[in-house]
Amino acid sequence: MAEASPLEPCRDATMATFVQKFGGTSVGDPTRIARCAARVKARRDEGHHVVVVVSAMGHTTDELIELAERVTDKPSRRELDMLMATGEQVSVALVAMALERLGVPATSLTGGQAGITTDGAYGRARVTRVARERLDREIALGRVPVVCGFQGLSSDGELTTLGRGGSDTTAVALAAALHVAEHGGACEIFTDVDGVYTADPRLVPKATKLARISYEEMLELALLGAQVMHPRAVLFGERYGVPIHVRHSQRPDEGTLICRETPDMEDVMVVGAALKPDLGRVSLRRIPNNPGMQGMLFEAVAKAGILVDDIVQTEFGEMASISFTVDHSELADVKIAASQVLDRVGTGELAIEIGLSKVSVVGTGMKSHVGVASRMFKALGEAGIPIHNITTSEIKISCIVNKEHGARAIAIAHDAFGLDKLGAAQAAGTAG
Amino acid sequence: MAEASPLEPCRDATMATFVQKFGGTSVGDPTRIARCAARVKARRDEGHHVVVVVSAMGHTTDELIELAERVTDKPSRRELDMLMATGEQVSVALVAMALERLGVPATSLTGGQAGITTDGAYGRARVTRVARERLDREIALGRVPVVCGFQGLSSDGELTTLGRGGSDTTAVALAAALHVAEHGGACEIFTDVDGVYTADPRLVPKATKLARISYEEMLELALLGAQVMHPRAVLFGERYGVPIHVRHSQRPDEGTLICRETPDMEDVMVVGAALKPDLGRVSLRRIPNNPGMQGMLFEAVAKAGILVDDIVQTEFGEMASISFTVDHSELADVKIAASQVLDRVGTGELAIEIGLSKVSVVGTGMKSHVGVASRMFKALGEAGIPIHNITTSEIKISCIVNKEHGARAIAIAHDAFGLDKLGAAQAAGTAG
Repeated sequence: MAEASPLEPCRDATMATFVQKFGGTSVGDPTRIARCAARVKARRDEGHHVVVVVSAMGHTTDELIELAERVTDKPSRRELDMLMATGEQVSVALVAMALERLGVPATSLTGGQAGITTDGAYGRARVTRVARERLDREIALGRVPVVCGFQGLSSDGELTTLGRGGSDTTAVALAAALHVAEHGGACEIFTDVDGVYTADPRLVPKATKLARISYEEMLELALLGAQVMHPRAVLFGERYGVPIHVRHSQRPDEGTLICRETPDMEDVMVVGAALKPDLGRVSLRRIPNNPGMQGMLFEAVAKAGILVDDIVQTEFGEMASISFTVDHSELADVKIAASQVLDRVGTGELAIEIGLSKVSVVGTGMKSHVGVASRMFKALGEAGIPIHNITTSEIKISCIVNKEHGARAIAIAHDAFGLDKLGAAQAAGTAG
Repeated sequence: MAEASPLEPCRDATMATFVQKFGGTSVGDPTRIARCAARVKARRDEGHHVVVVVSAMGHTTDELIELAERVTDKPSRRELDMLMATGEQVSVALVAMALERLGVPATSLTGGQAGITTDGAYGRARVTRVARERLDREIALGRVPVVCGFQGLSSDGELTTLGRGGSDTTAVALAAALHVAEHGGACEIFTDVDGVYTADPRLVPKATKLARISYEEMLELALLGAQVMHPRAVLFGERYGVPIHVRHSQRPDEGTLICRETPDMEDVMVVGAALKPDLGRVSLRRIPNNPGMQGMLFEAVAKAGILVDDIVQTEFGEMASISFTVDHSELADVKIAASQVLDRVGTGELAIEIGLSKVSVVGTGMKSHVGVASRMFKALGEAGIPIHNITTSEIKISCIVNKEHGARAIAIAHDAFGLDKLGAAQAAGTAG
């Protein structure tokens, strides 16, 4: 009651706020836009406040990039952002129109109008501030703000885009600013999959949909290649404690909730398995184990613009051996960079292997359970799959295997941790 | 010298500022955009400051409207503006890229970023203020600002479009704010015709291109259907004394200068002829000549959304007869509205004629020359063309003729005033 103001006549404790984000496929054509609008209306009809965030329609972004390429081979980042930002602006106008057609008062807003301030780094801007006044005003007027994802204004008033995963980040940032968690709301990410699975169902047909997953686990899975959510948006959600609900935009399924780790989550050792295919392994053997050796090597690799996957080092007396994995596409560049390092060192051998894959399992429960790694190694061993490298983090175990074993390895790991039953167990509240 | 400031290092009296506006056809594809950029570079290479204004590419606006129609049959004006404004934003980014490709530093700006404030009337906003600070800053940095035509921000920060003729209006408004006339600059309107002609060359093959024309004359011709410039932009130019130079975007011709009337302009009686085809005439005969009669009639017509062309009234004692012309497409509606008025009056007859055209001649020189009207009537009479109605203004004479006489009538009027020789005479400085 103390919080009531003339501008907020309809805010009360029973009304939650939901930020609903619709991706490019979900708003790909007028029919799909109408379905998104119906989703928004349904939430609103339940008596909740809704703020909508949308991406550019389907292939708009690709079309705009192609147009720019026909004009110049070196567009400036600023002008690309000016161009790209139009994609979301088209979407918000159309979604607002579709909502009004259903009798839902709606107001489209550019990122800047919605109060999103960025650091001004064109093409990869970070959200520095969200001023919620305009959103609050629209909500208080009983309207649904429909906000351009992926963009914001710098403090100089320049249009900037947030780069990959930008629309998810916009949605989570607005949800954080609106404190959606306080009244039981959430940030709903509507996408073309119906949630987060224990593995990619195209690889592992027995994969099951998770009812919930912790930010940390989702982050690891996203970094390992799960494309449901961009790691950046997950990190943002973790930092501000925003419940993120991943749902299918065209189907009414319950989806997956990404949230803080709860004590019962630790009962589950592993929540997901992932496969990164087409890796190559670069090994520098018998090199001097000097301090600074690793720094020199990976500085050279980074300067060549090569993204390194996992790194393993082993010692033999005064000599060391360093292996790291990279994507196949990086191998040509990495060979040059590594050779130059060996030339400078004056000793050692360079070996490059191709045709590898990385199979990983992720789970918060690993922190408190012993025997997770051994269970995985044993399962792969019994199946006759040789393991070339092992890397682990607090909540992840990764094994490098031959590419031809990759698909079988992830299915075996998935079975070994009973992930085919996890979805159902979570849904029934008996997980663990 | 007294005006020099640290921010304006390269401004001096020898540098003029040109606002160059490119229409939708001129920026229709990457090749045409490259040609526009070359035009801008050429001006700049002459040592002048340039500010560019662009419209949406080719058919973008139509495509966006079609998209909106697929979403809803009643889009709100606000959301339509949000949607439409993206068209120009795409253009400015691409034109800025094309300029940078030619080595010309350029900065694209939305209407709002360029300092254009409107009255907030969605779809038909009027420019209320132009804050030139940002433009000055870009110019002082040696950059070419590339501004979205057709749009501005309301004082509430809402995106608004200026409606028909909006991009021309933007260009003239920026030129006014930048005082381009003071240093010999101009507002250059690049379009798909090479200037203003004494008549539409498709109708009158002998039509000649005018070197210059007064705002007043251009305004009359635009209202009579000349599509080179929107009347609104001409009015704006007249009010602020902005020289408007209409030129072909893909050809180097000299074009036509629209400027204040100069004393020698009055030497030329007529500068142009125009034809409005497909008019219908509505006559209310033998109606009481009461005060308020006309008001009642035209209020009813306006309420029906009908655009009236010319009105003529004649009296016979206590009775009057009112005729007015409308476009053929309005006849069905006008018949209903006029019948209702007669019903209320309780007397009078309604007559509707179709198949009429209006041929007009325009010229500032009429103010100081006698015999202009008689020369026109005589020429039409000698050709055996009956005149059904005559309306005149200070600088215009219009005759309603049968549609089948229209094309011949404009050619005769064009000949009667020697317009086929006017273009060459103006160019040679011997006009009049």
